[in-house]
Amino acid sequence: MPRLADQQADFPQWYLDVIEQADLAEHADVKGCIIFKPYGYALWEAIQRDLDRRIKALGVENAYFPLFIPESMIAKEKEHVKGFAPECAVVTHGGGKELTEKLYIRPTSETIIYNSFAKWVHSHRDLPLKINQWANVVRWEMRTRPFLRTLEFLWQEGHTCHATKEDADQMVEAALAMYADFDREFLALPVMRGRKPEHEKFAGALYTLSTEALARDGKAIQAGTSHNLGQGFSEAYDVNFLDAVGKQQRPWMTSWGLSTRIIGTVIVVHGDAKGLRLPPMLAPIQMVIVPIYKTDEEKTAVLKIAREIEAVLKPTVRIKVDDRDEKSPGFKFNEWEVKGVPVRIELGPRDLEKKQVTVVRRDTGEKTAMPIASCTPSAMQTLLAGIQQSLYDQAEEFLKSHTHTVESYDDLKKIIASDEGGFVWAPWDGTRETAERVKNQTKASIRLLGEEKPAEGVKDGLSGVPATEMALYAKAY
Amino acid sequence: MPRLADQQADFPQWYLDVIEQADLAEHADVKGCIIFKPYGYALWEAIQRDLDRRIKALGVENAYFPLFIPESMIAKEKEHVKGFAPECAVVTHGGGKELTEKLYIRPTSETIIYNSFAKWVHSHRDLPLKINQWANVVRWEMRTRPFLRTLEFLWQEGHTCHATKEDADQMVEAALAMYADFDREFLALPVMRGRKPEHEKFAGALYTLSTEALARDGKAIQAGTSHNLGQGFSEAYDVNFLDAVGKQQRPWMTSWGLSTRIIGTVIVVHGDAKGLRLPPMLAPIQMVIVPIYKTDEEKTAVLKIAREIEAVLKPTVRIKVDDRDEKSPGFKFNEWEVKGVPVRIELGPRDLEKKQVTVVRRDTGEKTAMPIASCTPSAMQTLLAGIQQSLYDQAEEFLKSHTHTVESYDDLKKIIASDEGGFVWAPWDGTRETAERVKNQTKASIRLLGEEKPAEGVKDGLSGVPATEMALYAKAY
Repeated sequence: MPRLADQQADFPQWYLDVIEQADLAEHADVKGCIIFKPYGYALWEAIQRDLDRRIKALGVENAYFPLFIPESMIAKEKEHVKGFAPECAVVTHGGGKELTEKLYIRPTSETIIYNSFAKWVHSHRDLPLKINQWANVVRWEMRTRPFLRTLEFLWQEGHTCHATKEDADQMVEAALAMYADFDREFLALPVMRGRKPEHEKFAGALYTLSTEALARDGKAIQAGTSHNLGQGFSEAYDVNFLDAVGKQQRPWMTSWGLSTRIIGTVIVVHGDAKGLRLPPMLAPIQMVIVPIYKTDEEKTAVLKIAREIEAVLKPTVRIKVDDRDEKSPGFKFNEWEVKGVPVRIELGPRDLEKKQVTVVRRDTGEKTAMPIASCTPSAMQTLLAGIQQSLYDQAEEFLKSHTHTVESYDDLKKIIASDEGGFVWAPWDGTRETAERVKNQTKASIRLLGEEKPAEGVKDGLSGVPATEMALYAKAY
Repeated sequence: MPRLADQQADFPQWYLDVIEQADLAEHADVKGCIIFKPYGYALWEAIQRDLDRRIKALGVENAYFPLFIPESMIAKEKEHVKGFAPECAVVTHGGGKELTEKLYIRPTSETIIYNSFAKWVHSHRDLPLKINQWANVVRWEMRTRPFLRTLEFLWQEGHTCHATKEDADQMVEAALAMYADFDREFLALPVMRGRKPEHEKFAGALYTLSTEALARDGKAIQAGTSHNLGQGFSEAYDVNFLDAVGKQQRPWMTSWGLSTRIIGTVIVVHGDAKGLRLPPMLAPIQMVIVPIYKTDEEKTAVLKIAREIEAVLKPTVRIKVDDRDEKSPGFKFNEWEVKGVPVRIELGPRDLEKKQVTVVRRDTGEKTAMPIASCTPSAMQTLLAGIQQSLYDQAEEFLKSHTHTVESYDDLKKIIASDEGGFVWAPWDGTRETAERVKNQTKASIRLLGEEKPAEGVKDGLSGVPATEMALYAKAY
């Protein structure tokens, strides 16, 4: 197996190497698209299962809307179409004929879903209406990277409709909290959360909330966003309801989504020099038993015990015996490491003599001998839970040690320009102009705004104008 | 609630009425596409869960390939592109520019998947390779009907690659057996199964196997197909492997699929005058408790017991208490009937006095009193299993009584032209010409070929030429 590029020296190449060597995905012959190979798709299936449960727990129902959006329909909400139309794929021919109206392939489904909401919502009794869709969407990106940015990607998009702004605000918060919980509990990802500045919000939204993780190269990366869309889409798509006193009202919309980009996030946050490190809850294979033997006799003895351990653990642990004869133990160690399997169990003749196995944790590399009799489901559950927590703790420690607060623009520049990178809290004057000057000079953008405002008299480090916000700057994916 | 069209008098309108009133789906503003509403999409989710488990049990792994197929790629297998290209949607513009190569939206994914197989398959050790994909596909249909035929539909497509024809044959059979089992066990659908005649096979296949159910209007409808694709795609996409003695060989491909059309199949096979009838294993709601009361006091007493029954059954039964105050019990009975919920539990003050509930089966309409103390999870599981079986038995009885064997063309015509319709086994001379003459005259096509050949000397009823096959004729969806 070829070696991975050095994570420190060439993070982008390391990222591509991990995807290839862990057999997660490959470039398709269609520009900017990827093929999700079985091991990579299994990650998305696990994500879907867990997140779908959380979405339903919010009282949201799944539905499915068409891939195609007629040009006249997508054009109704002006800000939205301005943001999305330039990056759409357009169908002009169908069934061998030129179409009378072009069809846009959905880049996101607000327009087609709210067109239906107009038919579904009549009375305050119909609200809140909460719909989610698991779907593929297409955005014509120029610079693509597997998972992180692809022409076609998979996601879920939640769309809800509410009687009041307060209800919509609560939904936007609830969706963001769901993502933050999911990120933390299932993916072991610590995230920052908050509101995006005006110039970074979703096209057509009132405001956007986001969760942001920090990659090991010091760059920010989104891990779930949630938008209060206000009443703009209600107006554009003519969605109305009669309130309790019979007065016609415009409802408030929210939308929120999480995509296959999150797989990229897991790689760049947890991955290390040896490849992927998967949180046990996400891992398609949680433990792999690698038998070690030279003679046929040893092989028989070792495999027998390996199968016994597998049988005991199988009901509660996703476990696999790697019984490939043509590969050496060393090759297997390497392969399961690059694939991020949380626990490797080595079992050789000397282990058998001592009635033990050698347990190797992927999160720390720690090796321990463990009596075979102690390889119980509950012991292994405890071990896996410990690894899940340890990955979170490592990522949180990294996030904390790479989050700085500065006052001067020089300090901001210095940190962003350093090899370490990271998040930088800095006072901001609240203008797009200043944010863009910072971005042009440092490549860092404002990821989120702080809940607390800057103290009286504090100035924006670049413009010298009094600051109105604390902004979280970082270079970003 | 408006009444359904009469199922006997106007089956097509009845079908559309059921879909509307059961709130399964609605026409989208995009021609030929539908919106899967939550209740309809819940059926697809249940189908996915059960079928996905069966697919994985065959050793097949899920993956995901791009929506787009470049024109040069789809064109490689001549028969296949001839069959599919005319019904494709074509993307000509992306990111605001005209594309240098047109992109076809997948009508099925053989071409793009086998293009990858060429990169993945090198040695006999890489075989068999078994991949499945859950995806949306687009075929530019002119005459569409919700679920049964839509421009965009959802499906799973399995694609496998084997060293020998025998291995491929076995896979094709295993996939068909999986569909037949799934149809029978999960959807309570009895099906005929067999091989399609040459002129009805999948474009580019060696042969196609199919399962066919019989709708209540006497028309056949596919419920899962499986194709042996031979070596044609291997050749077109240059897929090769070295066999055990180091010789280069062309592998054999299979593909097999089941789509959202199956939801239409469930409707037309099980539906009755009152609407949908869902097999309990498929039903998103298996039991609904309808409280009956006039006074507030009655309401409190009845709802209390309803909640208690719900709490007892909830862990094992998908149950719901319909506590809407603004709807009458009669309205609710009607609504849950049209939605096909297998069991309705009525609970009123008189029931309470007698410490009983009234249980109404959707499959038979049968009403029975049942002591509240007997409403145990196991009793209800038995009831639901009985309903699942009864729906199968009813459909099987219908299938059997609507399957005829004839010798003369007159008898074939008479049965096909009757109101009852159904399947007709008839001797066939094996020529496409005769099959097409029958189709032009009767609208019946050959759905499947019998395993047994006609007896020596038996002639095709229309051509008078000696018959080589027993053909199963029917009008079809």
